[in-house]
Amino acid sequence: MNLVTRYAIRAGSYHDSVVLMQLQRALAGLPGVMDAGVVMATPVNRELLSAGGLEVGDAGPDDLLISIKGESEAAAAEALSRVDALLKVRGVESMGEFRPRSLASALKQLPEARWVSISIPGRYTAAVAEEALDAGRNVFLYSDNVPIDREVALKRKAREKGLLVMGPDCGTAMLGGVGFGFANRVRRGDIGLVGASGTGLQAIMSHIHTLGAGISQAIGTGGRDLSAEVGGMTAMQGLDLLRRDPETRVIVLVAKPPAPEVASRLLAFARSVGKPVVVHFLGAPLPGRRLGNLCFAASLSEAAELAVESGDSPETGDPIEGHVRGLFSGGTLAYEAMHGLSAFLSPKEYTIVDLGADEFTVGRLHPMIDQDLRIRKLRQETGGIVLLDVVLGEGSHADPAGELAPVIEHIKAEVLVIVIGTDEDPQGLAVQIETLAKAGARVFRTVNEAVEWIFLHRKSAEEDLLPVPLEAAQGPVINIGLDLFHADLQVDWRPPAGGNEKLAGILARMKG
Amino acid sequence: MNLVTRYAIRAGSYHDSVVLMQLQRALAGLPGVMDAGVVMATPVNRELLSAGGLEVGDAGPDDLLISIKGESEAAAAEALSRVDALLKVRGVESMGEFRPRSLASALKQLPEARWVSISIPGRYTAAVAEEALDAGRNVFLYSDNVPIDREVALKRKAREKGLLVMGPDCGTAMLGGVGFGFANRVRRGDIGLVGASGTGLQAIMSHIHTLGAGISQAIGTGGRDLSAEVGGMTAMQGLDLLRRDPETRVIVLVAKPPAPEVASRLLAFARSVGKPVVVHFLGAPLPGRRLGNLCFAASLSEAAELAVESGDSPETGDPIEGHVRGLFSGGTLAYEAMHGLSAFLSPKEYTIVDLGADEFTVGRLHPMIDQDLRIRKLRQETGGIVLLDVVLGEGSHADPAGELAPVIEHIKAEVLVIVIGTDEDPQGLAVQIETLAKAGARVFRTVNEAVEWIFLHRKSAEEDLLPVPLEAAQGPVINIGLDLFHADLQVDWRPPAGGNEKLAGILARMKG
Repeated sequence: MNLVTRYAIRAGSYHDSVVLMQLQRALAGLPGVMDAGVVMATPVNRELLSAGGLEVGDAGPDDLLISIKGESEAAAAEALSRVDALLKVRGVESMGEFRPRSLASALKQLPEARWVSISIPGRYTAAVAEEALDAGRNVFLYSDNVPIDREVALKRKAREKGLLVMGPDCGTAMLGGVGFGFANRVRRGDIGLVGASGTGLQAIMSHIHTLGAGISQAIGTGGRDLSAEVGGMTAMQGLDLLRRDPETRVIVLVAKPPAPEVASRLLAFARSVGKPVVVHFLGAPLPGRRLGNLCFAASLSEAAELAVESGDSPETGDPIEGHVRGLFSGGTLAYEAMHGLSAFLSPKEYTIVDLGADEFTVGRLHPMIDQDLRIRKLRQETGGIVLLDVVLGEGSHADPAGELAPVIEHIKAEVLVIVIGTDEDPQGLAVQIETLAKAGARVFRTVNEAVEWIFLHRKSAEEDLLPVPLEAAQGPVINIGLDLFHADLQVDWRPPAGGNEKLAGILARMKG
Repeated sequence: MNLVTRYAIRAGSYHDSVVLMQLQRALAGLPGVMDAGVVMATPVNRELLSAGGLEVGDAGPDDLLISIKGESEAAAAEALSRVDALLKVRGVESMGEFRPRSLASALKQLPEARWVSISIPGRYTAAVAEEALDAGRNVFLYSDNVPIDREVALKRKAREKGLLVMGPDCGTAMLGGVGFGFANRVRRGDIGLVGASGTGLQAIMSHIHTLGAGISQAIGTGGRDLSAEVGGMTAMQGLDLLRRDPETRVIVLVAKPPAPEVASRLLAFARSVGKPVVVHFLGAPLPGRRLGNLCFAASLSEAAELAVESGDSPETGDPIEGHVRGLFSGGTLAYEAMHGLSAFLSPKEYTIVDLGADEFTVGRLHPMIDQDLRIRKLRQETGGIVLLDVVLGEGSHADPAGELAPVIEHIKAEVLVIVIGTDEDPQGLAVQIETLAKAGARVFRTVNEAVEWIFLHRKSAEEDLLPVPLEAAQGPVINIGLDLFHADLQVDWRPPAGGNEKLAGILARMKG
């Protein structure tokens, strides 16, 4: 069979993606049509259609390309001739019911709406979202391609008003049992989620459901919320909301790795929520398996499992203020402590020194043998928390605790000592521990335990935000954009001047 | 009391670190001496002595600085006058027994020695280590400051001879119950370790002992072994040795994060050892909790716990060759799959495409609604493994499996599909799974399970190395350097020409 290819190009203006998909399906279903492509002619799309044997002509990235592969010249030409008629079909269909054409008229029609869900093209999004916030409504922003400075401005405005902006580029959310965007149907339950990752949230929620448990709320933040620029504004509001939400017993926090300073602020805040928090930063190192009320998952499915199994949180202790300084003889122990502390402390709050590093050992024995350097540094400490390691065993100092104890006794800091060794080591494990404890040190057997003790003894972290009322987790949704998504009221949104930017500019100037 | 400070400077040459430590202790113990510092006058050491109120003069980093704080002029002067006498003490003491002065004479005295342990200053180390390898002995290198090209050369030579070089900068090891360097006394047992981290190995071994289990062998590699330059030569030999060692039931692999290409080779090799392997790369992201016979720990103590609890390894399946290509609709799912595969595949072996990324969605609906792009790409697949996700729920495609099935049926690749959804989702979870399975796809409910299936179906990884005989895990040790460390025979090593580099050069030329 001799296949015939034909194409048409329409100079770009606004095209609803659903309409384009429907056009493509309609064309592909016509008699004698083997394949049809309806795409914006970006390089990626051109390449893909070419690979499938479709013609792409010289269409540019702003052009709509309609390409047909037919069994005959006549079939291909007939298909192309039907394009305009097919493009009109949806417009006619949506005339069947009355739909408001703007957010303002939608709000008049459904004044009790608490949420506005927006899935129109990115460049139109911020203005509509701002209009919604100004009207006192929370915003779910499915759209991407919103500039980050607009995101920051929207979220600042929301925070000042006690409103939520979930997104931009937020794929899913669930509040009061109502799903936003792409939403799996899940059992209601006592697990609340905050997520900067759409299908990540979906995977965890589905897995929780499969395990027999359920969801209280799932708050999406959009993928950039935990960047340094945005600073986790929505995530902090979300944690705060779930902290107060009586339906939420345990919280899951999932995201691609946040900016480091945002991550440590987020975990310091999560420490203060008084509920267990399962943390999964995808592809980021874990600071351990558990830190107080936080536990860390290594995968999406494990995050779900840990949330379902989660029990009570350990009690926090009286907070100890001041700097945390580690003076280590073991390089790996120093590294593990630094790694653990960096999860919840800012770089200004701690210093870890590895006294076995090259710079300290020129012409000097390893600090596991010769503690002179460490003792000199220890004498300079004046407060906060001092973290030491003592490594027993053959080859090491014969009595490290005995040498450290008199210094520890006189130091004006909380001293934590990690003792690594066995009950067969020549220094005598029990005696070493007892000597240190008598000198006033707190003794731990693993780095994790010491880091966790510090975690539990930092003062509560508060964020400067106006609480989002719990009622936000309920209430009707006005949907602007894709009518595949949940809507109590659908707005039949069109871009200004039908997407013609030049005309829109003239109209805007005329209004002004 | 008026304290008096005095100091002396000795132009640098070789000083045994133990002698310096003993000198400092002896000086500090003299009557009327309040504090004494004996250090190479590096900037760090100068700063530290100054902070303690000791004088540092204009001593440079190659100079030996002896600084005294005394109760009186006389006491300080008296202390300084004793320096030369004190420096001679250790020399006299060691005259009491006969000690060989060179490796060659030590080997004559103890020809059955299998190991040479070296803890002399770094610049002298490589030559002695090479001499040991040429004599057919394994080497434990405690010393640091060995140039990396020398390390590579030593390890290549060792690999060709079926010998081990543990180090340089190797803090600990244990073979056949004998500890090298700093070594905790631990119960013998069935857990073998390979570690590129000294106190990391010590912490894990001690914790294993505390948990009631024991150690078969612990092989140190030195901190740079897993760098791209060295390529994990010792670690691979170590894994291979423990694979064959009948005393080893489970293996622990601990290191700071390796170079990525070394990490994936190492884990691919670890997959093939036929024993459970607990992996802990400190501060590195985990690819999940478990991949076949590998499980991943988030801390040193957890590595010990997982090793003690470790059960049987799952069976591997028939290997499937070829490229692994992921065509994902969910960005986070794509990210998790990529992260998991990167743990054991090289970048050439897999490609993960997130079809929801901006470049693919210009004027196009999200691939969770519109699968056209994915189907076009899928038709181009010709072999290997294809990995897909199907995300159900409200807002998503009404029947994604039904649309994919006819394409999957005709594709000449192994197709794995991760289905995310619940039994309440509108598409019907059971029907979606059944449709995919009938089309020949393997269906998984989490990303992890799919990644693990791929892990279990890769062909065995082999390394080009001459096996180190199991007898290496036994045998007398000749110790060159610090006599704090284990020795069956101690060498009374001195640097050529007493450490005077100029003189050593002249002597070398005269020999030549």
